[in-house]
Amino acid sequence: MQVYLDNNATTMVDPLVVEAMQPFFSEIYGNPNSLHKFGTASHPALRKAMDQVYKALNASDNDDIVFTSCATESNNWVLKSVFTDHIVNGEKNHIITTEVEHPSVLAACRALENEGVKVTYLPVNNQGVVEPQVVKSFITDKTALVSVMWASNETGMINPIKEIGEICKEKGVLFHSDGVQAVGKIPVDLQEVHVDFVSMSAHKFHGPKGVGALYIKNSQPLSPLLHGGEHMGGRRSGTLNVPYIVAMGKAIELATTNIEEKMASIRAKRDRLEDALLELSDTFVVGDRDNRTPNTILISIKGVEGEGMLWDLNNSLIGASTGSACASEDLEANTVMLAIGADNELAHTGIRLSLSRFTTDEEIDYTIDQFKKAVFRLRSISSSFAKVGPTPGGESKACELHH
Amino acid sequence: MQVYLDNNATTMVDPLVVEAMQPFFSEIYGNPNSLHKFGTASHPALRKAMDQVYKALNASDNDDIVFTSCATESNNWVLKSVFTDHIVNGEKNHIITTEVEHPSVLAACRALENEGVKVTYLPVNNQGVVEPQVVKSFITDKTALVSVMWASNETGMINPIKEIGEICKEKGVLFHSDGVQAVGKIPVDLQEVHVDFVSMSAHKFHGPKGVGALYIKNSQPLSPLLHGGEHMGGRRSGTLNVPYIVAMGKAIELATTNIEEKMASIRAKRDRLEDALLELSDTFVVGDRDNRTPNTILISIKGVEGEGMLWDLNNSLIGASTGSACASEDLEANTVMLAIGADNELAHTGIRLSLSRFTTDEEIDYTIDQFKKAVFRLRSISSSFAKVGPTPGGESKACELHH
Repeated sequence: MQVYLDNNATTMVDPLVVEAMQPFFSEIYGNPNSLHKFGTASHPALRKAMDQVYKALNASDNDDIVFTSCATESNNWVLKSVFTDHIVNGEKNHIITTEVEHPSVLAACRALENEGVKVTYLPVNNQGVVEPQVVKSFITDKTALVSVMWASNETGMINPIKEIGEICKEKGVLFHSDGVQAVGKIPVDLQEVHVDFVSMSAHKFHGPKGVGALYIKNSQPLSPLLHGGEHMGGRRSGTLNVPYIVAMGKAIELATTNIEEKMASIRAKRDRLEDALLELSDTFVVGDRDNRTPNTILISIKGVEGEGMLWDLNNSLIGASTGSACASEDLEANTVMLAIGADNELAHTGIRLSLSRFTTDEEIDYTIDQFKKAVFRLRSISSSFAKVGPTPGGESKACELHH
Repeated sequence: MQVYLDNNATTMVDPLVVEAMQPFFSEIYGNPNSLHKFGTASHPALRKAMDQVYKALNASDNDDIVFTSCATESNNWVLKSVFTDHIVNGEKNHIITTEVEHPSVLAACRALENEGVKVTYLPVNNQGVVEPQVVKSFITDKTALVSVMWASNETGMINPIKEIGEICKEKGVLFHSDGVQAVGKIPVDLQEVHVDFVSMSAHKFHGPKGVGALYIKNSQPLSPLLHGGEHMGGRRSGTLNVPYIVAMGKAIELATTNIEEKMASIRAKRDRLEDALLELSDTFVVGDRDNRTPNTILISIKGVEGEGMLWDLNNSLIGASTGSACASEDLEANTVMLAIGADNELAHTGIRLSLSRFTTDEEIDYTIDQFKKAVFRLRSISSSFAKVGPTPGGESKACELHH
């Protein structure tokens, strides 16, 4: 048996999605910008995909949804164009984000700091959540943008986007949310919350890698990142990737139709797995289950290096992660765990397990079994755990780290 | 019969390319940045694709080839990062390009002009070609970059990239070429010419839309356009689009293997079509055949509006173009024809026919027949052509427009 539990890094493309995009490679292949029938033949499928995304997000006809090549592009676009529009060509000089954003937000912010922008990296509480009052306290007259992820890729913890949106609206500050880990996993209703820009990526909800989107509230101005042939109403140039746009429409429809039922099914498997792993002594799971995406567990196992654990799981053909795949090539401490107050040793013991709607009960059973065996094996050879030994009365618990 | 003759806008994905990428949607779907087997399973295919691109371009191991989402991204990346690296954070303030570049270069240059960059748009000669001495005469101590397309999307005319490269090398100025219409159509040997950056796009050579690359000579520094998870050695962040990268490798291999034979076969069909259309009176084809990509004809038919011609061809299920699909939604005069010295009336009569290796002799026969019928019909109702009448002794010819 092999078990893929790294769905926050990327997902299998749903076979129905693969089927939907197939005709657009070698049959309906014209450039949608061309005036002839080869070009216009793809228009109904593009309109359908657009409708599927609008419906999934409950976006308004007044809003724009612009397809991009990935959420990294969407995030870079918002940050760099807000810089151009409101800092270089405006009166602002300040961007607020958080310590736990995806590397595409953090690295773009660091690049903007090199251009003279002042960036505030907000702390999170011991649940890994950004508190609205903290956001409010850092907004000044010079603040151009607040950028807070909707849900964490590492912990699954869901931020209070509605409350932060209201604060930004009240203060007249633009609000961007990296929605990559929220869209397709939890309900995202863009009539219910006030967010100016939302980034998303198809490959996190069983679409292909290489297509994403940016939601733009009220079709407000935002300079393009990619200038050119005025595709997508001039917002994002580049020949439309018809197969992947069709795929993204289909994928978001499949992910969000009856999302409550899908969430309940994934949550049940996740909770069963989490409960079983918490039976091990000296284990900790980050964050309250009820405020977490239903597919995610970030668990620390005292005395067990994350990398060693990954290796053992990998040998059992279980794919897990020590955190973001976008930062996985350096074997450092989990920065999100550090941000929520874990000490350095604990931050080296985090293992992220992320399920999908394709995860089966048999896979959960197998994972519980293999995971426990790996912990026993690794603790038996762990110098630190052996030296200190299990915590007296060492109980497992949801995270109680103090910041 | 239906005939697709708009291969400079985009191409059918070769069924062998579709086949090559298929396993990477739902079977080998891990994130290549992940450390587990699901992630590393794609590495051999990624390495193979990279090798295929290096081989096709005769790139050196010291060079970088970075996959992007399209040539529009590659072009924007070079222009905007040269701006950041050598103008904002350097001593330069000047970029040289041409009047006939693709919209992604022209629009990016206009955006940079808004940031204070001085841009020179070089004229082309009556063949639509940039003359090396003209490039040389505009280079100053303040010139950061010369950007000249390898071959024109509209005319197919090939620029003297080797000569321009030598001038840029001698002057110590960076040289970028938009190679979109050259790569896969004519031999591109990056050991033979000195170019610092070359943009390319898979969908112009029977790969999918939504993947391109940037060649970077000697892996020289160039700030990223997309910051993030340090993918592609930190040069271009964003989860790797594994299926499309595999597809691009396969497509470039198929396009460039025995390219001389493929060119000869396409050229024979193109020349036969061109000869037949030039039998019509008062027709002009832009540019010398021998210095043109072997698949392209830009023909003007006096007294026949390009749009009307497109419409008639479309009714015969022949897909052609009045010029770049990236500018095809506005029904204006062909700007490239204006640049080479055509008057406004003539610039409204251009029709671009672009073949591919999938174009058959039967399709050429059908096109000749339908094209001639359309010209007769449209001329019979053309007020301008009826009023003036055919040019006395009106002969057809290769373009002799004077600049």
